[in-house]
Amino acid sequence: MTHTSQSLKTLDNRYRANMINCISGFKAAALIGTVSENGNENLAIFNSIVHIGANPPLLGFILRPTTVRRDTYENIKATGSYTINHITPQIIKQAHQTAASYDKDKSEFTATGLSPEHIEGINAPFVKESYIKIGMEYVNEYPIEENGTILIIGKIISLRFPDNIQTEDGWLDLQQADTIATGGLDSYYSVSKLSRLSYAVPDKMPEEI
Amino acid sequence: MTHTSQSLKTLDNRYRANMINCISGFKAAALIGTVSENGNENLAIFNSIVHIGANPPLLGFILRPTTVRRDTYENIKATGSYTINHITPQIIKQAHQTAASYDKDKSEFTATGLSPEHIEGINAPFVKESYIKIGMEYVNEYPIEENGTILIIGKIISLRFPDNIQTEDGWLDLQQADTIATGGLDSYYSVSKLSRLSYAVPDKMPEEI
Repeated sequence: MTHTSQSLKTLDNRYRANMINCISGFKAAALIGTVSENGNENLAIFNSIVHIGANPPLLGFILRPTTVRRDTYENIKATGSYTINHITPQIIKQAHQTAASYDKDKSEFTATGLSPEHIEGINAPFVKESYIKIGMEYVNEYPIEENGTILIIGKIISLRFPDNIQTEDGWLDLQQADTIATGGLDSYYSVSKLSRLSYAVPDKMPEEI
Repeated sequence: MTHTSQSLKTLDNRYRANMINCISGFKAAALIGTVSENGNENLAIFNSIVHIGANPPLLGFILRPTTVRRDTYENIKATGSYTINHITPQIIKQAHQTAASYDKDKSEFTATGLSPEHIEGINAPFVKESYIKIGMEYVNEYPIEENGTILIIGKIISLRFPDNIQTEDGWLDLQQADTIATGGLDSYYSVSKLSRLSYAVPDKMPEEI
């Protein structure tokens, strides 16, 4: 299949959305937990988590301000706090369901059966069922003028994961942690490690480590 | 394992880099092809491709201007053109090796044995061995002031992929296309589809589609 700028313009919107959301490759999907100033807890799935830097430890995600997920944005702006929780195969359906347009005062925790977990020092709720839980502090936002999305940047201020997924050099075995990958708008995948390769230097092919 | 802002600061740099690069979850890794004004071709692996929007079709990636990959940035700025090529299990080692610090006039195509492919209308080289090839036009950049990285935004102006990976609704079967996922700085994974779920609406659990 071949597409050009012109042929992409003529496609049905839903067809194009399915294709373009797939074409970027596999993505991290995670549940973002927030709480409003009134104490209403919110949980929403995002598939645009991106590593920004390790020191300071920064993660970003792309937010569409005009969708149901604006609760997440408003809560982050109001409280400065959010959580990022990895998704396992056991909670795929509940995680996907957080994308439904619930009323503002209806918690997606209640609606989907996922369990909020509260950890001292972080206002926003974590997802108890997740094995990898990240506490985040809002840092900055970059409005993307080309389409009205927003890149949200946050700093990792808390990390929790099972001891047995970490190796001596800090690496995390995400397969062992049952973390899933996503593709497109609606597809969820398990993963199997093919290779972990040594640091690349010229004129020497990398080796398995 | 539990970490706080304080404990993260005290870690060895390499240990922290391994851990924080893993903690964001699985990522798309792709080879970005560019060409300089002098005609020197460059190929570099990036693991921070992010979907920005489907209409117009926009992809982003995070670029570290102070690493070896600055050739990619200079070429994109000079020519306005780049390509994004998916990685298959057959070319993981070559793809990883493109991260080595080669001299500026040494093409990573020559160094790694991957084959440049030229498609009319796109200045930058594609990777012949990739099954999914995306031609990109530079649109904008957003400097991330927190750590000096840059979000590059580009528009998809060309798409090529095998006919048999697409379903009637536009969705792409990335597993069938042999696209790999990455974790951390150095790990490559194959994927298996667990679920593709129906559009989420309130009070109805999603179903397999």
